[in-house]
Amino acid sequence: MAYTFDEDTAVEPGPGGWRAVVSDRWSIAGIPNGGYVMSLMLRAVSREVAHPDPLTTTAHFLSPTSPGPALVRVEVLKQGRSLSTAAVELVQDGRSTVAMLTTWGNLDDLTGPSNTSKNPPPVDGPITDEAVVGPPAFAAIASRFRYTLPVDATEGFLGRPTGNPELTGRIEFADGRPADGLAMPLIVDAFPPAVFQLGHYGWTPTIELTVHLRARPAPGPLTCRIATRFLHGGMGEEDVEVWDRSGRLVGMSRQLLRTADQAKAGATWRPNNSNPEVS
Amino acid sequence: MAYTFDEDTAVEPGPGGWRAVVSDRWSIAGIPNGGYVMSLMLRAVSREVAHPDPLTTTAHFLSPTSPGPALVRVEVLKQGRSLSTAAVELVQDGRSTVAMLTTWGNLDDLTGPSNTSKNPPPVDGPITDEAVVGPPAFAAIASRFRYTLPVDATEGFLGRPTGNPELTGRIEFADGRPADGLAMPLIVDAFPPAVFQLGHYGWTPTIELTVHLRARPAPGPLTCRIATRFLHGGMGEEDVEVWDRSGRLVGMSRQLLRTADQAKAGATWRPNNSNPEVS
Repeated sequence: MAYTFDEDTAVEPGPGGWRAVVSDRWSIAGIPNGGYVMSLMLRAVSREVAHPDPLTTTAHFLSPTSPGPALVRVEVLKQGRSLSTAAVELVQDGRSTVAMLTTWGNLDDLTGPSNTSKNPPPVDGPITDEAVVGPPAFAAIASRFRYTLPVDATEGFLGRPTGNPELTGRIEFADGRPADGLAMPLIVDAFPPAVFQLGHYGWTPTIELTVHLRARPAPGPLTCRIATRFLHGGMGEEDVEVWDRSGRLVGMSRQLLRTADQAKAGATWRPNNSNPEVS
Repeated sequence: MAYTFDEDTAVEPGPGGWRAVVSDRWSIAGIPNGGYVMSLMLRAVSREVAHPDPLTTTAHFLSPTSPGPALVRVEVLKQGRSLSTAAVELVQDGRSTVAMLTTWGNLDDLTGPSNTSKNPPPVDGPITDEAVVGPPAFAAIASRFRYTLPVDATEGFLGRPTGNPELTGRIEFADGRPADGLAMPLIVDAFPPAVFQLGHYGWTPTIELTVHLRARPAPGPLTCRIATRFLHGGMGEEDVEVWDRSGRLVGMSRQLLRTADQAKAGATWRPNNSNPEVS
């Protein structure tokens, strides 16, 4: 049986680009998750470049993507010895909804020096004494993953904000699919926004999301540190560090997002009817 | 008299795009600084979009840009009420050397909530007790700015690494030009790499650089915090936070770079003959 993620990022060659079907299984309030759409676009790129690893990928979100048919247009700008770069667009109804640049390489070829000035978070035992296991009930996407989150952060997503827009949690695909570079954009975008911990429960559209793949993840759950350190006038960055079970940093992301103050707690992230856990 | 930065980012309409001349006044070892090239490309975008502020800009560097004539091709992907997005390429001799995506908006329109969980560095008085003023002697670009750096970091750039790839420094244009959103990519890329503080003095090519403009800078020097926390196999991120004199975070950047261990101290960043300070 194929994994859900692979079914939902399948592409096939078609006239004018790669044909895909955007799934509704990774949606939040009916809108497909931006990281999921990036992963789908990366799948098309993987069919056109020789290198195996998407080292750095940036998407700008032009308009909401809808579940249903889409065309992924890939223009390979460079096919070098060590790096390949492509420009990518997702097109629905003749209109680009996402524009992306991505550079691929081979992580096996990295032979230079290493240095790490920061210790990993706890990557195996409990994240805090109060860790809980189970999906927070906020969207269809939540039932695609197993989340481990501190109790206070989980409650913060549902109306009792901690006041601190930082948290460490753990994530793995619910159907056991191993994490990899293709899935990294989805994974960094799969937690509820850290600004919910400030009580800003409105819709938080992503303006731009950049993901770096720094190593291929070891099997097992990934530990993510998520933080919004600077929120100015409703615009903020959300940084995510992704660590694998061996204690290695495997990914980093930063997105620029907007938030609003007016929404009621849980109003837009309330579970929709495609999430069987909470209907 | 026009400021050097504005002279060197001038564009004029031409067949097939915006005509520009890449200057050699912002070079390192003869190669124009990547952030400078991004600023030049943003100048062309400013002529095509209605919004005033480049909120987020990502460039992928395909091959080195050379001083001399260039064409900047701008494709506006979206002209929305609150945001505009453009895809941009710099073309020399018929070949794209830089590909960029950029989304613009109006910082005056931000009306949502604010929160800052981190204190600014010292933005006015001395950065450390040992602060020095004066350009580090490493490249043509150095004479375009006034730098204030701790003594140990300055020496680290020149062969006596501190062992800690983090530093806080101050920067302003030598000719007094005020910093703004157009100049932000150049500014975040204008310090020597933080990995020099580990003794890795080789050429550090940028794979990708993303810059967020979070506020319009107040007049005066900008204070930058620069860090490479994770270097894996010669590939690392370099993060820069930019603060203005009022103590406000005005910009953030992250680049993915490669470094090498083999170069001799100062070998590639040794001053070249276009820097009058050190010839």
